[in-house]
Amino acid sequence: MPKKLPAAVCELLDRPVLAHVATLMRDGSPQVTPVWVDTDGEYVYINTAQGRTKARNLKKDALVALSIADVKNGTRNDLQIRGRVVEVTTQGADEHIDKLSMKYSGRAYAGWLAGAGRGKTSEVRIKIKILPEHLVGAAANIS
Amino acid sequence: MPKKLPAAVCELLDRPVLAHVATLMRDGSPQVTPVWVDTDGEYVYINTAQGRTKARNLKKDALVALSIADVKNGTRNDLQIRGRVVEVTTQGADEHIDKLSMKYSGRAYAGWLAGAGRGKTSEVRIKIKILPEHLVGAAANIS
Repeated sequence: MPKKLPAAVCELLDRPVLAHVATLMRDGSPQVTPVWVDTDGEYVYINTAQGRTKARNLKKDALVALSIADVKNGTRNDLQIRGRVVEVTTQGADEHIDKLSMKYSGRAYAGWLAGAGRGKTSEVRIKIKILPEHLVGAAANIS
Repeated sequence: MPKKLPAAVCELLDRPVLAHVATLMRDGSPQVTPVWVDTDGEYVYINTAQGRTKARNLKKDALVALSIADVKNGTRNDLQIRGRVVEVTTQGADEHIDKLSMKYSGRAYAGWLAGAGRGKTSEVRIKIKILPEHLVGAAANIS
Protein backbone atom coordinates (compact mmCIF):
# COMPACT_ATOMS: atom_id res chain seq x y z
CA MET A 1 0.00 0.00 0.00
CA PRO A 2 1.27 3.50 -0.76
CA LYS A 3 2.17 5.83 2.07
CA LYS A 4 2.26 9.61 1.97
CA LEU A 5 5.81 10.66 1.07
CA PRO A 6 7.62 13.01 3.50
CA ALA A 7 7.18 16.71 2.66
CA ALA A 8 10.92 17.19 1.96
CA VAL A 9 10.82 14.33 -0.55
CA CYS A 10 7.83 15.85 -2.37
CA GLU A 11 9.49 19.28 -2.38
CA LEU A 12 12.62 17.79 -3.95
CA LEU A 13 10.63 15.81 -6.53
CA ASP A 14 8.59 18.91 -7.38
CA ARG A 15 11.75 20.75 -8.43
CA PRO A 16 13.31 20.16 -11.90
CA VAL A 17 16.13 18.02 -10.55
CA LEU A 18 17.21 15.18 -12.82
CA ALA A 19 16.77 11.66 -11.44
CA HIS A 20 18.82 8.61 -12.40
CA VAL A 21 16.79 5.43 -12.60
CA ALA A 22 18.29 1.94 -12.32
CA THR A 23 16.55 -0.99 -13.95
CA LEU A 24 17.58 -4.60 -14.38
CA MET A 25 18.63 -6.07 -17.72
CA ARG A 26 17.34 -9.53 -18.65
CA ASP A 27 20.55 -11.08 -17.29
CA GLY A 28 19.99 -9.33 -13.93
CA SER A 29 22.72 -6.72 -14.42
CA PRO A 30 21.90 -3.09 -13.57
CA GLN A 31 21.42 -0.23 -16.05
CA VAL A 32 21.11 3.47 -15.11
CA THR A 33 19.85 6.42 -17.14
CA PRO A 34 18.78 10.01 -16.42
CA VAL A 35 15.03 10.68 -16.30
CA TRP A 36 12.50 13.38 -15.59
CA VAL A 37 10.38 12.53 -12.58
CA ASP A 38 7.32 13.71 -10.65
CA THR A 39 5.08 12.56 -7.82
CA ASP A 40 1.44 12.68 -6.70
CA GLY A 41 2.60 12.53 -3.08
CA GLU A 42 2.42 8.72 -2.88
CA TYR A 43 3.76 7.29 -6.11
CA VAL A 44 6.69 8.40 -8.27
CA TYR A 45 6.20 8.69 -12.04
CA ILE A 46 8.65 8.55 -14.92
CA ASN A 47 8.03 8.50 -18.66
CA THR A 48 9.86 6.79 -21.48
CA ALA A 49 9.30 5.64 -25.05
CA GLN A 50 8.44 2.15 -26.23
CA GLY A 51 11.41 0.25 -27.63
CA ARG A 52 14.06 1.75 -25.35
CA THR A 53 16.17 -0.52 -23.15
CA LYS A 54 14.70 1.16 -20.08
CA ALA A 55 11.15 0.53 -21.35
CA ARG A 56 11.90 -3.14 -21.93
CA ASN A 57 13.22 -3.40 -18.36
CA LEU A 58 10.33 -1.49 -16.76
CA LYS A 59 7.56 -4.08 -16.80
CA LYS A 60 4.92 -4.33 -14.07
CA ASP A 61 6.46 -5.58 -10.78
CA ALA A 62 9.99 -4.75 -11.98
CA LEU A 63 12.35 -3.66 -9.20
CA VAL A 64 13.75 -0.17 -9.72
CA ALA A 65 15.83 2.41 -7.89
CA LEU A 66 16.12 6.16 -8.29
CA SER A 67 18.84 8.58 -7.21
CA ILE A 68 18.58 12.35 -7.06
CA ALA A 69 21.35 14.72 -6.02
CA ASP A 70 20.27 18.32 -5.77
CA VAL A 71 23.39 20.45 -5.63
CA LYS A 72 22.41 23.86 -4.33
CA ASN A 73 24.51 26.51 -2.62
CA GLY A 74 27.36 24.03 -2.38
CA THR A 75 25.40 21.53 -0.30
CA ARG A 76 23.96 18.31 -1.60
CA ASN A 77 20.43 17.19 -0.94
CA ASP A 78 20.41 13.51 -1.80
CA LEU A 79 17.49 11.16 -2.15
CA GLN A 80 17.57 7.47 -3.01
CA ILE A 81 14.43 5.51 -3.63
CA ARG A 82 14.02 1.77 -4.06
CA GLY A 83 10.69 0.47 -5.20
CA ARG A 84 8.72 -1.45 -7.77
CA VAL A 85 6.72 -0.69 -10.89
CA VAL A 86 2.99 -0.97 -10.22
CA GLU A 87 1.65 0.26 -13.57
CA VAL A 88 2.91 0.78 -17.12
CA THR A 89 0.50 2.54 -19.46
CA THR A 90 0.26 4.60 -22.64
CA GLN A 91 -2.90 6.21 -21.22
CA GLY A 92 -2.20 9.82 -20.32
CA ALA A 93 1.47 9.32 -21.20
CA ASP A 94 1.56 12.10 -23.84
CA GLU A 95 -0.01 14.57 -21.40
CA HIS A 96 2.44 13.41 -18.73
CA ILE A 97 5.55 13.94 -20.90
CA ASP A 98 4.27 17.44 -21.75
CA LYS A 99 3.82 18.17 -18.05
CA LEU A 100 7.32 16.87 -17.27
CA SER A 101 8.79 18.81 -20.20
CA MET A 102 7.18 22.04 -18.95
CA LYS A 103 8.58 21.37 -15.48
CA TYR A 104 12.13 20.63 -16.67
CA SER A 105 12.46 22.83 -19.77
CA GLY A 106 9.62 25.35 -19.66
CA ARG A 107 8.37 24.01 -23.01
CA ALA A 108 5.93 21.31 -24.16
CA TYR A 109 7.68 18.11 -25.25
CA ALA A 110 7.55 18.83 -29.01
CA GLY A 111 9.25 22.16 -28.34
CA TRP A 112 11.87 20.52 -26.15
CA LEU A 113 12.62 17.91 -28.83
CA ALA A 114 12.99 20.65 -31.46
CA GLY A 115 15.30 22.60 -29.13
CA ALA A 116 17.40 19.47 -28.64
CA GLY A 117 17.68 19.17 -32.44
CA ARG A 118 15.65 15.99 -32.44
CA GLY A 119 12.66 17.27 -34.44
CA LYS A 120 9.41 15.36 -34.66
CA THR A 121 9.14 11.85 -33.39
CA SER A 122 6.79 8.93 -33.89
CA GLU A 123 7.67 7.43 -30.52
CA VAL A 124 4.95 5.93 -28.33
CA ARG A 125 5.27 7.33 -24.81
CA ILE A 126 4.65 5.24 -21.73
CA LYS A 127 4.02 6.41 -18.20
CA ILE A 128 5.49 4.33 -15.40
CA LYS A 129 4.05 4.38 -11.88
CA ILE A 130 6.49 3.40 -9.15
CA LEU A 131 5.68 2.49 -5.56
CA PRO A 132 8.51 3.82 -3.35
CA GLU A 133 9.33 1.12 -0.78
CA HIS A 134 12.61 2.39 0.74
CA LEU A 135 13.76 6.00 1.07
CA VAL A 136 17.30 6.99 2.03
CA GLY A 137 19.14 10.32 2.04
CA ALA A 138 18.98 13.82 3.47
CA ALA A 139 15.68 14.58 1.77
CA ALA A 140 14.15 11.44 3.26
CA ASN A 141 15.44 12.51 6.68
CA ILE A 142 16.91 9.03 7.10
CA SER A 143 20.69 8.77 7.26
CA MET B 1 40.71 -6.81 -21.29
CA PRO B 2 40.43 -3.04 -20.91
CA LYS B 3 40.16 -0.84 -23.98
CA LYS B 4 41.11 2.80 -24.28
CA LEU B 5 38.01 4.86 -23.52
CA PRO B 6 36.88 7.36 -26.20
CA ALA B 7 38.34 10.87 -25.75
CA ALA B 8 34.88 12.41 -25.15
CA VAL B 9 34.22 9.91 -22.36
CA CYS B 10 37.55 10.74 -20.67
CA GLU B 11 36.88 14.47 -21.03
CA LEU B 12 33.48 14.06 -19.37
CA LEU B 13 34.89 11.88 -16.57
CA ASP B 14 37.72 14.38 -16.02
CA ARG B 15 35.18 17.11 -15.21
CA PRO B 16 33.59 17.33 -11.71
CA VAL B 17 30.26 15.92 -12.87
CA LEU B 18 28.48 13.72 -10.35
CA ALA B 19 27.91 10.10 -11.36
CA HIS B 20 25.12 7.85 -10.12
CA VAL B 21 26.20 4.27 -9.57
CA ALA B 22 23.81 1.32 -9.53
CA THR B 23 24.69 -1.79 -7.59
CA LEU B 24 22.72 -4.93 -6.80
CA MET B 25 21.35 -5.71 -3.34
CA ARG B 26 21.65 -9.26 -2.03
CA ASP B 27 18.13 -10.02 -3.30
CA GLY B 28 19.11 -8.85 -6.80
CA SER B 29 17.21 -5.55 -6.63
CA PRO B 30 18.97 -2.38 -7.81
CA GLN B 31 20.25 0.47 -5.63
CA VAL B 32 21.56 3.83 -6.94
CA THR B 33 23.60 6.52 -5.19
CA PRO B 34 25.61 9.57 -6.27
CA VAL B 35 29.40 9.18 -6.40
CA TRP B 36 32.55 11.00 -7.34
CA VAL B 37 34.33 9.30 -10.22
CA ASP B 38 37.55 9.40 -12.22
CA THR B 39 39.36 7.40 -14.86
CA ASP B 40 42.87 6.40 -15.95
CA GLY B 41 41.67 6.20 -19.55
CA GLU B 42 40.81 2.49 -19.36
CA TYR B 43 39.16 1.82 -16.01
CA VAL B 44 36.68 3.90 -14.02
CA TYR B 45 37.27 4.43 -10.29
CA ILE B 46 34.93 5.25 -7.45
CA ASN B 47 35.56 5.43 -3.72
CA THR B 48 33.35 4.58 -0.78
CA ALA B 49 33.62 3.69 2.90
CA GLN B 50 33.50 0.24 4.45
CA GLY B 51 30.14 -0.61 5.96
CA ARG B 52 27.98 1.31 3.52
CA THR B 53 25.30 -0.51 1.52
CA LYS B 54 27.15 0.38 -1.67
CA ALA B 55 30.40 -1.06 -0.31
CA ARG B 56 28.68 -4.31 0.64
CA ASN B 57 27.30 -4.56 -2.91
CA LEU B 58 30.58 -3.70 -4.63
CA LYS B 59 32.53 -6.93 -4.29
CA LYS B 60 34.95 -8.17 -6.95
CA ASP B 61 33.10 -9.28 -10.11
CA ALA B 62 29.93 -7.40 -9.05
CA LEU B 63 27.94 -5.99 -11.95
CA VAL B 64 27.55 -2.22 -11.82
CA ALA B 65 26.24 0.63 -13.93
CA LEU B 66 27.00 4.35 -13.92
CA SER B 67 25.03 7.29 -15.28
CA ILE B 68 26.31 10.82 -15.81
CA ALA B 69 24.27 13.73 -17.13
CA ASP B 70 26.31 16.85 -17.73
CA VAL B 71 23.90 19.74 -18.15
CA LYS B 72 25.79 22.59 -19.78
CA ASN B 73 24.50 25.51 -21.80
CA GLY B 74 21.04 23.93 -21.80
CA THR B 75 22.19 20.77 -23.59
CA ARG B 76 22.68 17.44 -21.93
CA ASN B 77 25.77 15.32 -22.43
CA ASP B 78 24.79 11.88 -21.19
CA LEU B 79 26.96 8.87 -20.55
CA GLN B 80 25.88 5.47 -19.33
CA ILE B 81 28.37 2.78 -18.46
CA ARG B 82 27.74 -0.86 -17.67
CA GLY B 83 30.60 -2.90 -16.33
CA ARG B 84 32.02 -5.00 -13.55
CA VAL B 85 34.19 -4.51 -10.50
CA VAL B 86 37.68 -5.87 -11.07
CA GLU B 87 39.35 -4.72 -7.84
CA VAL B 88 38.34 -3.53 -4.38
CA THR B 89 41.17 -2.26 -2.20
CA THR B 90 42.01 -0.05 0.75
CA GLN B 91 45.45 0.50 -0.77
CA GLY B 92 45.76 4.06 -2.05
CA ALA B 93 42.10 4.66 -1.18
CA ASP B 94 42.82 7.61 1.15
CA GLU B 95 44.97 9.30 -1.49
CA HIS B 96 42.26 8.59 -4.07
CA ILE B 97 39.45 10.16 -2.01
CA ASP B 98 41.66 13.25 -1.50
CA LYS B 99 42.24 13.45 -5.25
CA LEU B 100 38.50 13.08 -5.94
CA SER B 101 37.67 15.64 -3.25
CA MET B 102 40.09 18.15 -4.82
CA LYS B 103 38.50 17.56 -8.20
CA TYR B 104 34.91 17.94 -7.00
CA SER B 105 35.24 20.44 -4.15
CA GLY B 106 38.66 22.06 -4.47
CA ARG B 107 39.53 20.77 -0.98
CA ALA B 108 41.14 17.66 0.48
CA TYR B 109 38.60 15.19 1.86
CA ALA B 110 38.96 16.23 5.52
CA GLY B 111 38.23 19.82 4.49
CA TRP B 112 35.24 18.74 2.44
CA LEU B 113 33.84 16.72 5.35
CA ALA B 114 34.26 19.71 7.68
CA GLY B 115 32.55 21.97 5.13
CA ALA B 116 29.67 19.50 4.94
CA GLY B 117 29.36 19.68 8.73
CA ARG B 118 30.45 16.08 9.10
CA GLY B 119 33.69 16.69 11.01
CA LYS B 120 36.28 13.99 11.48
CA THR B 121 35.58 10.42 10.58
CA SER B 122 37.07 7.05 11.39
CA GLU B 123 35.76 5.50 8.20
CA VAL B 124 37.92 3.12 6.19
CA ARG B 125 37.95 4.19 2.56
CA ILE B 126 37.94 1.70 -0.28
CA LYS B 127 38.82 2.27 -3.90
CA ILE B 128 36.80 0.41 -6.50
CA LYS B 129 38.15 -0.30 -9.98
CA ILE B 130 35.51 -0.84 -12.64
CA LEU B 131 36.00 -2.30 -16.11
CA PRO B 132 33.59 -0.47 -18.47
CA GLU B 133 32.04 -3.09 -20.77
CA HIS B 134 29.22 -1.13 -22.46
CA LEU B 135 29.10 2.61 -23.18
CA VAL B 136 25.94 4.41 -24.29
CA GLY B 137 25.08 8.11 -24.65
CA ALA B 138 26.17 11.26 -26.43
CA ALA B 139 29.59 11.27 -24.76
CA ALA B 140 30.19 7.68 -25.90
CA ASN B 141 29.26 8.73 -29.44
CA ILE B 142 26.88 5.78 -29.55
CA SER B 143 23.19 6.61 -29.78
